[in-house]
Amino acid sequence: MKFKAEIDVMPLEALLDPQGKAVTSSMKTIGLPEISGVRIGRHVRLFVEAADHQEADSMVQDACKKLLANAIMESYTYSIEKV
Amino acid sequence: MKFKAEIDVMPLEALLDPQGKAVTSSMKTIGLPEISGVRIGRHVRLFVEAADHQEADSMVQDACKKLLANAIMESYTYSIEKV
Repeated sequence: MKFKAEIDVMPLEALLDPQGKAVTSSMKTIGLPEISGVRIGRHVRLFVEAADHQEADSMVQDACKKLLANAIMESYTYSIEKV
Repeated sequence: MKFKAEIDVMPLEALLDPQGKAVTSSMKTIGLPEISGVRIGRHVRLFVEAADHQEADSMVQDACKKLLANAIMESYTYSIEKV
């Protein structure tokens, strides 16, 4: 079965996010001062061939830990659905 | 009221995604050949102060169009919730 995973990789809350800070201040410049606390990470979409949801889940976790996220600086969340 | 928006900015399907291609082939190297079709974009989290959900929605759209996404190369999706 084929599954689609949507993964968000974000900088840890405890860390500064200079890119997010820069975007937050640009919001004021473009007339959107109501927007604050911008944080920017990565979004990864991928497909995985697995026997069931559980196997797909463990492969996606493996991919996040080994390749997609750096646990020292980033956290990740994901959702998996059958396609 | 304060709302939180979660925004995904992804390269358009019609465009190549060299970063995603590189990660797809790295998956094979790390023993996850079941993973394919990796595409990599940005995930943006932000807060917006607005009178209601509709106003928050229009400000987030504005931010996406003016600053967060480049419509020529990227598409965006978002969800907004009250916090």
